[in-house]
Amino acid sequence: MPDLSDAAKRLLVGRPVRSERLGHTLLPKRIALPVFASDALSSVAYAPDEILLTLSLAGLASYTISPWVALAVVIVMLTVVASYRQTVRAYPSGGGDYEVATTNLGPRAGLTVASALQVDYVLTVAVSVSSGSHYLATVLPAARDHEAIIAIGLVALIALINLRGVRESGSGFAIPVYLFMAGMGVMALVGGIQWATGTLGTAESAQFDVLAEAGYEEGLMGLAGGFLVLRAFSSGAAALTGVEAISNGVPAFRKPKSKNAATTLLLLGLIGATMLMTVIGLARATGVRFVQDPHLQLAMNGQPVPEGYEQDPVIGQIAQTVFAGFPPMFYLVTAATGLILLLAANTAFNGFPTLASILSKDGYLPRQLYTRGDRLAFSNGIIILALAAIALIWVFDAEVTRLIQLYIVGVFVSFTLGQLGMIRHWNERLPSVVAAKERGAMKRSRAINAFGFALTALVLAVVLITKFTHGAWIAIGLMALLFAVMVFIRRHYQHVADELEIEDVAAARALPSRVHALVLVSKVHKPTMRALSYARATRPSTLQAITVAVDRDAAEQVRRDWDAAEVPLPLTVLDSPYRDLTRPVLEYVKSIRRESPRDLVVVYVPEYVVGHWWERVLHNQSALRLKSRLLYTPGVVMASVPWQLASSARSLVNPDDPGERLGDLPAPGMVRRGE
Amino acid sequence: MPDLSDAAKRLLVGRPVRSERLGHTLLPKRIALPVFASDALSSVAYAPDEILLTLSLAGLASYTISPWVALAVVIVMLTVVASYRQTVRAYPSGGGDYEVATTNLGPRAGLTVASALQVDYVLTVAVSVSSGSHYLATVLPAARDHEAIIAIGLVALIALINLRGVRESGSGFAIPVYLFMAGMGVMALVGGIQWATGTLGTAESAQFDVLAEAGYEEGLMGLAGGFLVLRAFSSGAAALTGVEAISNGVPAFRKPKSKNAATTLLLLGLIGATMLMTVIGLARATGVRFVQDPHLQLAMNGQPVPEGYEQDPVIGQIAQTVFAGFPPMFYLVTAATGLILLLAANTAFNGFPTLASILSKDGYLPRQLYTRGDRLAFSNGIIILALAAIALIWVFDAEVTRLIQLYIVGVFVSFTLGQLGMIRHWNERLPSVVAAKERGAMKRSRAINAFGFALTALVLAVVLITKFTHGAWIAIGLMALLFAVMVFIRRHYQHVADELEIEDVAAARALPSRVHALVLVSKVHKPTMRALSYARATRPSTLQAITVAVDRDAAEQVRRDWDAAEVPLPLTVLDSPYRDLTRPVLEYVKSIRRESPRDLVVVYVPEYVVGHWWERVLHNQSALRLKSRLLYTPGVVMASVPWQLASSARSLVNPDDPGERLGDLPAPGMVRRGE
Repeated sequence: MPDLSDAAKRLLVGRPVRSERLGHTLLPKRIALPVFASDALSSVAYAPDEILLTLSLAGLASYTISPWVALAVVIVMLTVVASYRQTVRAYPSGGGDYEVATTNLGPRAGLTVASALQVDYVLTVAVSVSSGSHYLATVLPAARDHEAIIAIGLVALIALINLRGVRESGSGFAIPVYLFMAGMGVMALVGGIQWATGTLGTAESAQFDVLAEAGYEEGLMGLAGGFLVLRAFSSGAAALTGVEAISNGVPAFRKPKSKNAATTLLLLGLIGATMLMTVIGLARATGVRFVQDPHLQLAMNGQPVPEGYEQDPVIGQIAQTVFAGFPPMFYLVTAATGLILLLAANTAFNGFPTLASILSKDGYLPRQLYTRGDRLAFSNGIIILALAAIALIWVFDAEVTRLIQLYIVGVFVSFTLGQLGMIRHWNERLPSVVAAKERGAMKRSRAINAFGFALTALVLAVVLITKFTHGAWIAIGLMALLFAVMVFIRRHYQHVADELEIEDVAAARALPSRVHALVLVSKVHKPTMRALSYARATRPSTLQAITVAVDRDAAEQVRRDWDAAEVPLPLTVLDSPYRDLTRPVLEYVKSIRRESPRDLVVVYVPEYVVGHWWERVLHNQSALRLKSRLLYTPGVVMASVPWQLASSARSLVNPDDPGERLGDLPAPGMVRRGE
Repeated sequence: MPDLSDAAKRLLVGRPVRSERLGHTLLPKRIALPVFASDALSSVAYAPDEILLTLSLAGLASYTISPWVALAVVIVMLTVVASYRQTVRAYPSGGGDYEVATTNLGPRAGLTVASALQVDYVLTVAVSVSSGSHYLATVLPAARDHEAIIAIGLVALIALINLRGVRESGSGFAIPVYLFMAGMGVMALVGGIQWATGTLGTAESAQFDVLAEAGYEEGLMGLAGGFLVLRAFSSGAAALTGVEAISNGVPAFRKPKSKNAATTLLLLGLIGATMLMTVIGLARATGVRFVQDPHLQLAMNGQPVPEGYEQDPVIGQIAQTVFAGFPPMFYLVTAATGLILLLAANTAFNGFPTLASILSKDGYLPRQLYTRGDRLAFSNGIIILALAAIALIWVFDAEVTRLIQLYIVGVFVSFTLGQLGMIRHWNERLPSVVAAKERGAMKRSRAINAFGFALTALVLAVVLITKFTHGAWIAIGLMALLFAVMVFIRRHYQHVADELEIEDVAAARALPSRVHALVLVSKVHKPTMRALSYARATRPSTLQAITVAVDRDAAEQVRRDWDAAEVPLPLTVLDSPYRDLTRPVLEYVKSIRRESPRDLVVVYVPEYVVGHWWERVLHNQSALRLKSRLLYTPGVVMASVPWQLASSARSLVNPDDPGERLGDLPAPGMVRRGE
């Protein structure tokens, strides 16, 4: 019942929002940075861990290569940033890769990007929140071994907050992000000084030796080793997610939008790169060990690690070492990291419905996802996203290492196609430009995008090769499924549109010759009388009051009341051999239609409007069923004549209800859409 | 969505049924007996077991008293039968105790009976099916220890069959009942002869000694012992359930209805009584042991029973002994017993919806339970009954002994109030009768009912005292709840009726002065044009086409198409600051109402009629929401102008669909209602 969903909506979601109010919430860079940073920077919380974890399979020696792997990731990151600076300049509308791919490579490519991004949004939530709950466990030992259920709870919480609506530009978002940056900065500084002055301690895990897995006896030498390095790199590449977010958020920036967006993008890239290198560097310097299963892979002079040993995330271990003398900082860094991971998940909750509404506008998703004004539209998207993420967390038991295998395939599909689209974009524009200076700029941009394309394509290949069997195939399967569904929906809408197109205007405008009005009488009471007088007010060619004799006595009663009410109209009693309300009316209407097919039959149905859900169970059932049937008979109009019962005033759907008054909470993603 | 439930209905339930067809299915006694027998006779399958089981707590010696307990049950049974013979004569309409109590003791009493019976219907299903699945386990060892899940499956199966509709008068019902009777008869005969000739063997369990529970050291002597005997009796009284069924089924009998019903009733009573005595007698003669937990209560010269020992139901054990030389008979008797237990459960599925439809006619239950022609009405009752029974089976792990503690409280509440009502009935009629002969008959009837009342009241007291703490309180709690709910529903309907009553006929018949027609335009296509011409056909005082500018470009497109279609009518574009469809229309309608409150506003909404459930997700959402809102504004009529998409032809709701054609399957309970 739409009214019920409405009620739920009111409770969960709060009140709609006047777009004017958001009009001037365009973001200054200092706010834009935190809004878009969380996703991009938070990956520093797990990317280094995954690099070390993967390398550790080949034994401790392989850690020596970790800085180089990180460096490779950084190079890719900066390349992608450079490429996207071109994109935001060329496409300030905020369509991002979806728009770029669609306009330059055609709808199929665009749709591929769309499915890829949607899947990746789900994974962003799953990975970030899972990682976040592990950070929680480092500061809150009670949470250990309950990471999965905690993560699921957190996803539900974030979803609820977004259903309720939250202004991303609020300081509630800015503070933790800056806190995280500050924390990491201090850690880098202090750690750096300690290292330079040789006072840097060693991590607790440094005492352990890392045992190589079977097959990696000769470390990173040989094919297996090389492959392992590539896998480490693929996992590390998770640090790149979130860069594309800005390209969808250009409209949110203050003028000059593109320039500010590009600057913010560069800023983010540099910060992210620095953080990644810092963490890897300090991890090396403090001798942090990070492996898949400490109890199998770690050993101390031959002995396995003690039973109770719990492996903390890399940043946690580093903070513990660097701030050994000053625990509060350790807690602050860890907490800030956990917090920014949740904000990263929140980013997906903003991006997903935004993309969905663009897709539904283009007819790839149900229409009701488009009407932005109705927050319910977004709710659907939010709920779907939350459920999908929860499912993944549940299946993979919130293990980041396993989830990361599904991750970033989508992002890189989007990167690659986006860049390819940009190359086309420049190629198409170049011929029409004569000014040498401008041509030079274009050529430079094209070169950058070309390089970006080549590199991201390469990375995508590496990711697919190294991760496909480890789980990437799941992500790809989901993308294919989404793609198919969206194509199907688009086809359906197109099909319907064709069916409904007006070929012959004259025919479409032809009027039915006469109007037969039928008033359905179940009892003789106010609603019936209202329906009757409304019907009479429309002055139909013929007017009939009909009642169905489902029960003889009842019908007799109705007839008596009818006469008592002195209605200047005979009451037609339809016999009901099946003691059923619907069929006789249906048959009667059809008989009228048979006699005069060019006439119109208007059936007036008195309806109660009630306040409580349980009242709906007690009323209107037969009316509802009758209506649903009559709809299938051509040439019939169902006119519901509502009677508002006293209780209806209580209803949450009542437009005069305070819940309907204008609120000031934005719908998810509005801020980054610059609305 | 009603259409969906319709679709489901069609699939599960099949096609409606013409009452004429059932008109001449009035039951001859030979069919009536099996129809009503299953419930009454099946209790022989567990009543004796419960008597022995309860007595066994006081040790083996206490078994000697079992025939006397059974005899007491038989006496009550015959008394009840005698009493009900009066009821069916006085109330041939089939209202049963509910009618008797309501007419003679007032609605409260009637409602008490109704709640009691409804709860007991649930327990009939739970107990019978649980017991049935234990019989299954005796012939099918694989089923052992899975009784609960099997029972649940069986309940679901029976429910499905009844949703589909099944003619109770069919031989599919008669055969197993007669088979059961025959089987029991043969067993009684053969067993009797064997016993007379001293060739009767001893049951397998006869070798065991029954250990008395703590507190019953001195057997049945003392208070505890006496109490135990009463408890045994209460459990044995379960044999009386099903007698009242006939009093509800009088209309189903051939003329002279009452006489035939009375005869069938007597027949049933005698057969039931004989069976009960036979089973108890043979159990004694073959030395059957039946206890709650064999491994605790049974012993062989000091040693507990072997691990693998499984305790079969009493009838099973007897059959095994009597037909030791001829296994097929054993299987036949056990199978027939299991089968009749399922039929007994089926009886409840017929009685429950019947009672529900009577109650809904009196306004105690939602109206849609009344319209019998619509099998969906019964489906609700069937599903509720099934779920409730499944819940009980689940909670009590299909243990008959535990379920039986909740049982028959309801039946005896109904018995007692029914008989009390009958006494009143006779007292009221006596004064008006002069003919001595008739007075004599009446006085006799009254005497019988009076005795019946006294005895059933006594039994009810015993049952309550001995079983309350063992679980009867649950049954009573459920009855109270049902009672409260039904009173509440009745009040609500009354309240609404008062609110809707016509005080001032003239005012009720006043016509709105003018009619403003609004046609909602989302796109310019066939459905819109149809809505437009239909609206024009009703010649309203004013006609306006309105569209909401949720999206600027889209609105512009609509305007262009509008001009292209050369509609002789301006298109009003409503601005939507919240990018929402509903609010602007709502505000606009209200503004019209404000200007001229006595006018009528008719909003024409073009609607798609689709065939698949998923199409509903893709269409009409905003229309639905708009309608649900507009209903709350007085003076507004919502006119749905349906456009049947090609796919709608496929729909199961389509009245031209074969699924809608007349079928010949009766709704549950129709046969016993004599329809």
